[in-house]
Amino acid sequence: MTTIAVIPGDGIGPEVIEPALDVLDALGLGARTDVLDHVNAETYLRTGTALTEADLDRIRSSEAALLGAVGDPRLSDTAYVRAVLTTLRLELDLYVNYRPARLWHDRLSPLRDPARRAIDCVIVRENTEGLYSGIGGGTRTGTAQEIAIDVDLSTRQGVSRVLEFAFSVARRSVCLVDKANAVRNGGQLWQRCWSEAVARHPHVETSHLYVDTAALRLATDPTAFDVIVTNNSYGDILSDLTAALAGGLGVAASANLNPVTGQGLFEPVHGSAPDIAGTGTANPFGAILSVALLAEHLGRTEEADAVRRAVAAAVAAGRVTPDLGGSLSTKEVGTVVLTELRRP
Amino acid sequence: MTTIAVIPGDGIGPEVIEPALDVLDALGLGARTDVLDHVNAETYLRTGTALTEADLDRIRSSEAALLGAVGDPRLSDTAYVRAVLTTLRLELDLYVNYRPARLWHDRLSPLRDPARRAIDCVIVRENTEGLYSGIGGGTRTGTAQEIAIDVDLSTRQGVSRVLEFAFSVARRSVCLVDKANAVRNGGQLWQRCWSEAVARHPHVETSHLYVDTAALRLATDPTAFDVIVTNNSYGDILSDLTAALAGGLGVAASANLNPVTGQGLFEPVHGSAPDIAGTGTANPFGAILSVALLAEHLGRTEEADAVRRAVAAAVAAGRVTPDLGGSLSTKEVGTVVLTELRRP
Ligand SMILES: CC(C)[C@H](C(=O)O)[C@@H](O)C(=O)O
Ligand SMILES: CC(C)[C@H](C(=O)O)[C@@H](O)C(=O)O
Repeated sequence: MTTIAVIPGDGIGPEVIEPALDVLDALGLGARTDVLDHVNAETYLRTGTALTEADLDRIRSSEAALLGAVGDPRLSDTAYVRAVLTTLRLELDLYVNYRPARLWHDRLSPLRDPARRAIDCVIVRENTEGLYSGIGGGTRTGTAQEIAIDVDLSTRQGVSRVLEFAFSVARRSVCLVDKANAVRNGGQLWQRCWSEAVARHPHVETSHLYVDTAALRLATDPTAFDVIVTNNSYGDILSDLTAALAGGLGVAASANLNPVTGQGLFEPVHGSAPDIAGTGTANPFGAILSVALLAEHLGRTEEADAVRRAVAAAVAAGRVTPDLGGSLSTKEVGTVVLTELRRP
Repeated sequence: MTTIAVIPGDGIGPEVIEPALDVLDALGLGARTDVLDHVNAETYLRTGTALTEADLDRIRSSEAALLGAVGDPRLSDTAYVRAVLTTLRLELDLYVNYRPARLWHDRLSPLRDPARRAIDCVIVRENTEGLYSGIGGGTRTGTAQEIAIDVDLSTRQGVSRVLEFAFSVARRSVCLVDKANAVRNGGQLWQRCWSEAVARHPHVETSHLYVDTAALRLATDPTAFDVIVTNNSYGDILSDLTAALAGGLGVAASANLNPVTGQGLFEPVHGSAPDIAGTGTANPFGAILSVALLAEHLGRTEEADAVRRAVAAAVAAGRVTPDLGGSLSTKEVGTVVLTELRRP
């Protein structure tokens, strides 16, 4: 039986995980959860460790994990956030960060031209290397001659596998985004792996953009894109941009995947939002739509679609939290989604 | 007497430089130009060199340089573009890339909310280090174990001087954009230099955003920003985004500056656009507004403002090229701007 590890985390994390767990229940997946509610900033502050080996084992032995959000204002150094997110991505070798952006209702688009609002694309972000390699250091620290370097790492294995995944999820087209004209070494490796991937998939429409142009085109006409595949850093930036174009971080869900081992970590793209934690206004859609991605991952495609339809219905009815212009609380929105889900 | 080196370049470069030179003339700066019209792809293809030492000397000995655009479809490897742009930035140590984004007319904004359209900000992009360091390499090339690295370089001198410049041009506020939570070594150096710069400028409002959040906020409400200071890579990406929000690359001008030596290279942000070269439809505003930045650099603030007013008037009257929804040619738009400039 599939186990689903659940890490509510900090701030609004536990608040959005609550309705997300209700949705898991409604899909008949609730009995399988293994909740790790001690993985949070409190524990880290007390013990200096965010994830113990035992925690990692529980997560590793589950088929999917659901995370609320991590982060705490008392920990201004972000080592803790990295200790959770980056550790999970690297330890489980979750090499794909899959970030769909879809406009749930015309009203949510920040764009003026009605013909260009209906964003429905996916950022496939490489999730284990690039500028997140952790390689680098500094010298002459504290002097006027101080130098610091961070290594942007690309490996053939890392690049090929994420490109292959991008093609596997393409509906219409795949667009490679890089900066091969300026960042040469990794750029050329990506370009070579790309040529090979394109040759392996002759029936998929492909294109290539430099990252600056990609940002400009997304802001101008996001409907032009289906799958965008790119490195860790550009994927981080562009997926926040596509989230903005799809109505904001409140509705953004993501999956961290290893398509080979079958493991997956699902999380809303938003953070722990300490400024609104405890006010009951956090938008649960990011977490609920992460459950949809999780259900899909477990082969429950119909259930995943049902969750998405329920969210779309709630948005259409304006039964949403304040960030989307509504006046409902996190819990109330959760109830709306459950009611929609139970509708025959 | 000030000399202004002019490099028309390739594609639409010479086409937009023509009206830009007319504007320089109208400002009484025309007699001072030194046109290097052999610096182009033709020469590079023939001789293998884009800029000779003699060319560099002519540019070095000028107080300002104006560049149209470089790039040629026959040179799909972008070594040529780098040989011009990156060489000039590094050889002249033009450590600031100053990229203002201002909405010239409400009609040009892609944003839906009228209250959020009036972008008027500046990206101050570090222009000599970061991921453009050129440091890096590859190993096991061509094998399944291939690895490539590019070094993201930050130096205390490089970071401090660009931050100082950002504060010197702030009208309301300066926002530092980095990814110090994930890209640690450079991130921490930027953060330390930032704290020092903030302390040196206690009266300027300051803020800090991670680059992903910055992209999201810009797309949501660009009016919240005045000066954004960031590294070479993020500045490249965010300045294309702000250009999109201000009406597209057609109106984007930039200055590459060394505030210490006083040297400056001014260029539209667009490229050589081979697809529209020769059609007479290239938008000359990027080049003309680069002349405004150049005039300002030479202390001709009033003339610079006059050029901007002329552009604003042309835009307001809809006397623009097709990319902005008009039907005028490059030349015709140039004439409109000149007529506006000569209006008492
Ligand atoms: C052509 C390219 C190398 C260049 C850059 O990234 O610097 C361009 O995009 C720019 O922004 O001036
Ligand atoms: C918190 C941060 C390190 C993280 C990242 O950049 O990967 C976040 O922005 C994300 O996109 O999941």
